[in-house]
Amino acid sequence: MKIAVDAMGGDNAPQAIIEGVNLAKKDFPEIEFLLYGKEEEIKKYLTDETNITIIHTDEKIESDDEPVKSIRKKKQASMVLAAQAVKNGEADAIFSAGNTGALLAAGLFVVGRIKNVERPGLMTTMPVFTGEKDAGFDFIDMGANADNKPEHLLTYGILGSFYAKKVRHIDNPRVGLLNNGTEETKGSELTKAAYELLAQEESINFVGNVEARDIFSGVADVVVTDGFTGNAVLKSVEGTALSLMSILKTSITDGGLKSKMGALMLKDSLKGMKSTLDYSSHGGAVLFGVKAPVVKTHGSTGPEAVRNTISQIKTMLETNLVGELQEFFETPKIKE
Amino acid sequence: MKIAVDAMGGDNAPQAIIEGVNLAKKDFPEIEFLLYGKEEEIKKYLTDETNITIIHTDEKIESDDEPVKSIRKKKQASMVLAAQAVKNGEADAIFSAGNTGALLAAGLFVVGRIKNVERPGLMTTMPVFTGEKDAGFDFIDMGANADNKPEHLLTYGILGSFYAKKVRHIDNPRVGLLNNGTEETKGSELTKAAYELLAQEESINFVGNVEARDIFSGVADVVVTDGFTGNAVLKSVEGTALSLMSILKTSITDGGLKSKMGALMLKDSLKGMKSTLDYSSHGGAVLFGVKAPVVKTHGSTGPEAVRNTISQIKTMLETNLVGELQEFFETPKIKE
Repeated sequence: MKIAVDAMGGDNAPQAIIEGVNLAKKDFPEIEFLLYGKEEEIKKYLTDETNITIIHTDEKIESDDEPVKSIRKKKQASMVLAAQAVKNGEADAIFSAGNTGALLAAGLFVVGRIKNVERPGLMTTMPVFTGEKDAGFDFIDMGANADNKPEHLLTYGILGSFYAKKVRHIDNPRVGLLNNGTEETKGSELTKAAYELLAQEESINFVGNVEARDIFSGVADVVVTDGFTGNAVLKSVEGTALSLMSILKTSITDGGLKSKMGALMLKDSLKGMKSTLDYSSHGGAVLFGVKAPVVKTHGSTGPEAVRNTISQIKTMLETNLVGELQEFFETPKIKE
Repeated sequence: MKIAVDAMGGDNAPQAIIEGVNLAKKDFPEIEFLLYGKEEEIKKYLTDETNITIIHTDEKIESDDEPVKSIRKKKQASMVLAAQAVKNGEADAIFSAGNTGALLAAGLFVVGRIKNVERPGLMTTMPVFTGEKDAGFDFIDMGANADNKPEHLLTYGILGSFYAKKVRHIDNPRVGLLNNGTEETKGSELTKAAYELLAQEESINFVGNVEARDIFSGVADVVVTDGFTGNAVLKSVEGTALSLMSILKTSITDGGLKSKMGALMLKDSLKGMKSTLDYSSHGGAVLFGVKAPVVKTHGSTGPEAVRNTISQIKTMLETNLVGELQEFFETPKIKE
């Protein structure tokens, strides 16, 4: 098992990335890593060079580079070389904390789409607030596409269902369609047509429409949406959570001595709350529907999250997730 | 100034509605109210009958009635009669805490659209968490429509801007387009086309694209979106806020004696947080683009929120908001 790592992607690269690789190597000594980036800097943080190959390059994609243009022009960038290694069969998967748009472009144009998957989607496992550890739902498309057709949403249902079974070990994952009401007749032209397709698909357990209000309380294991809506939902959640934290902080600061003492006493509880919110424990976001695992974490990702994401990639490879998807989609029963 | 009130709409009707009218009458004794519903029940809660006309009816629309069908079939329902009064010029505005879909249908089909406004939108003033009292942004369309065209989003920009100027007294309101990135080139087919139209519109101060993550920190005074996305954003915010509150509660309960003591000490701060979140202080949601103010509050609305909403309707009427909108849209410079 070989994982190509874009060592230069992310705000804290290469340090956070390499420290994450160090952690992963302890847990999974059998994984071989191909590390793309500045050799000297990588070596500064690497604690153990067994099963490690460093491929030196000076070029990298910046976080504000124009995605498609940059992967076409910066042919020696660490991310592009890593994707190229996957394409050439030198590695089985690619990991990056760099420019999301560029990684999506590298996934689509370098690694390449699975036959009959017209529009790969970006998927992540979101936390649900039911109190159960590891509870969550797979949310796809989080925003790889700005416009989707009903057929794409059907594909996302199938992709998400495969992931929930293989990686999250859920027997018969419930697939919900994000909509503006739970009734069957609700929705936009897009969601109404997608509903029909999902309801007819025999390979999945479609449970109907779900609303954004309810997805965090665990109404489905997989939630399907178009990329524009997925992006809006994720950013709303993020904005609300940040705002609430800041309100809470202000309330405490403005509340005088009694509140401040209360806050100190509550500190551990608030820390527990923060860890529930932290969905990096589920790993990174997967560009799903391409010929190998292409996995992204936040730019500000730390070593722990890198390790978790490598563990996620390992599971995807061990279970031959992408191979089975290819078989499913290339068998001529579903067409896009 | 005459306001038609659907006294039977909402979970706590008619009690909460009539108690709200009682409060409003103290603040605004000059307003005349037409109260539609069961006379006997209404009289039970009404403290003062000056400037009040009760129009008795036994019929009402239930919260689970099919919207369009119910307003067509239940011709004597309190909500339908109230809308009819506005249509006939017997009242200037309608207020209801009842079935949202039915009120939208009553607004569209009984009160009627302003000429050249093809798809009225639902608008509310959302709170921003900047710490300023009364800070907020007008969010339109919150979900009256499942599918919108670019021209509708232009109309929402104009409607929201009028509202922000007239009712919220903002001189040159910043109008933002909700999009999946802030760059001009970002977006779906819909938002890209809407961007062009909004940028060309001289009557508004268009500030470009805004992201769902940032709208709660006050990047715009008016945020324009299609009804499907608007619905998803609102429900995400609601779901996240509820989940966070419940996490906080669980953290406190599970946190042992120290946490519980802390929570008690923090109680006032948490109350302050709750009141910042409570957007009923800005009034209700307005179906905007019809020939009179059609205003809706939550089904679970209490007397205070009813009073605030009546104050909001009063401002809309005093400033002749709808009259000016009619003049604007009927002047043949903008076409949908």
